[in-house]
Amino acid sequence: MDNIKIFAPATVANVSCGFDSMGFAIENLGDTMYFEKTETLGVEITEITGAENLPLAATENAAGVVALAMLKAAKATFGIRMSIDKGFTPGSGLGSSAASSAGAAYGVNQLLEAPFSILELTEFARLGEQAACGSPIADNVAAALYGGFVLIRSYSPLDIVRLPVPESLRLVAIHPQIEVKTKDARAVLPETVPLKDAVTQWANVGGLVSGLFMNDYSLIQKSLVDIIVEPARKHLIPHFEDVKTAALEAGALGAGISGAGPTIFALVEGEQKAEAVREAIDSSYANKAIAYKIYSSKINTRGVQIIDE
Amino acid sequence: MDNIKIFAPATVANVSCGFDSMGFAIENLGDTMYFEKTETLGVEITEITGAENLPLAATENAAGVVALAMLKAAKATFGIRMSIDKGFTPGSGLGSSAASSAGAAYGVNQLLEAPFSILELTEFARLGEQAACGSPIADNVAAALYGGFVLIRSYSPLDIVRLPVPESLRLVAIHPQIEVKTKDARAVLPETVPLKDAVTQWANVGGLVSGLFMNDYSLIQKSLVDIIVEPARKHLIPHFEDVKTAALEAGALGAGISGAGPTIFALVEGEQKAEAVREAIDSSYANKAIAYKIYSSKINTRGVQIIDE
Repeated sequence: MDNIKIFAPATVANVSCGFDSMGFAIENLGDTMYFEKTETLGVEITEITGAENLPLAATENAAGVVALAMLKAAKATFGIRMSIDKGFTPGSGLGSSAASSAGAAYGVNQLLEAPFSILELTEFARLGEQAACGSPIADNVAAALYGGFVLIRSYSPLDIVRLPVPESLRLVAIHPQIEVKTKDARAVLPETVPLKDAVTQWANVGGLVSGLFMNDYSLIQKSLVDIIVEPARKHLIPHFEDVKTAALEAGALGAGISGAGPTIFALVEGEQKAEAVREAIDSSYANKAIAYKIYSSKINTRGVQIIDE
Repeated sequence: MDNIKIFAPATVANVSCGFDSMGFAIENLGDTMYFEKTETLGVEITEITGAENLPLAATENAAGVVALAMLKAAKATFGIRMSIDKGFTPGSGLGSSAASSAGAAYGVNQLLEAPFSILELTEFARLGEQAACGSPIADNVAAALYGGFVLIRSYSPLDIVRLPVPESLRLVAIHPQIEVKTKDARAVLPETVPLKDAVTQWANVGGLVSGLFMNDYSLIQKSLVDIIVEPARKHLIPHFEDVKTAALEAGALGAGISGAGPTIFALVEGEQKAEAVREAIDSSYANKAIAYKIYSSKINTRGVQIIDE
């Protein structure tokens, strides 16, 4: 194989109760990436469309950093030329750098004739997160690579658990066009939390995981609660409470901050309710002074995938 | 029905990572209780065998308190006479008061012709825990009533999730014959925990719950980790590290403190390994100056049950 085109999905990390340990992938939203072998060693990024201000220098670009590390680890005798079409905006809280990092890991692995496991690809993709966000977080890249819902059970050693995706689960998300820096979103987190709050949170993590395995929407609904991170971060996101209230009143199972924000996500049972929740969120933001985009989609269960030409 | 005899199982609460939110029931260890209707209103406890110093006065006894509350709630026109044969020692960390409380809730409900749901029985049984331990904790009583593994997803409102029990899972437990007061075991807990430790803990709760659903012993093994409560409590339990090391070296999936201790539990895959773990734990304690009992059993999947005469 000398060239490959792939689609790498956007992702929602944290999923309310599961801060830094859960995530899921979004259908029909993500980066399209093209890779081809070159005789020249190294990595060349020829073009990035769909987003401004992303570095083309491979050593500064999330996807470039991943590709360079993989070529080095595999002692490749060829180089990689790539182009990236960003399907959604960086800084959205929907795993933009993670999509490009996961996409690069997957695409380069294919051109190398797949020497690396999906867990190893996740490790490589974390290098892209490190380059883009300053922290090698794994929840977005793991969700993008594995697809569906994932649990990051451990960082050291990295251990990813794939969780089932209830068939009728739908995502509705709104991305207010403001910037929330991950660094700022991290800075507002408490360093310590009351033990009793931690217990409440991990009981909900257990409930959410159980709900996914049992296909139990009521249990998912009850468990989509975050009493630790959301209260600390929600003031960074304009009109968060309005959107959440609108989503819940329209029948969403739950709503919360996607990753570090500013995107607000809602999980919904069924297409019809998803449409109602989309409309309710849209109405709640229509008269605000902030531009926004709304996404409504299934859960992506396949992760990064090859696009046949 | 004018009388009934039941068996109420001992239980292990917390299960390493799941402090205050997980528990499971033990096969072949528990209280045997006999209940009969009386014309006189109120509750009379005629006899408690198998344990010393437990109060016979209904208002001071865990089972008595539960029975009184249920008769009152049901506006019963009869009273209850009961006797309790304790199958294991109070203060062991194996849910002694919980077994009697759960057994009373179940038995009295039967004599009342079952007006209460199992969730309501759990609420009544918590009154027994309140009377015996000063705190209406639900993990032991829920495990005793539901059987198998349970997750206490929420206390307010009370929400119990039944989790699957992998077929080959076995328990080995050692009860050093010393007293650890629940009050003391609570007093050593930190009031706050670092957020990053809480994340590690809830990722393991997610892993343990997933492992139970997936019948994945390796995942159960990796997830049976407690970095918050065990480090704070283990000094209360003599030779805890020796027992844990012996259990793990003999092939246990994990080992930890059962409830507030002093019992140390180990979970093991399969009968053969359970025997090896039992021997290893036995050897590790044989030369200590403390008397002990060892239990080896399946997981009880039925909860409180009626004994046919």
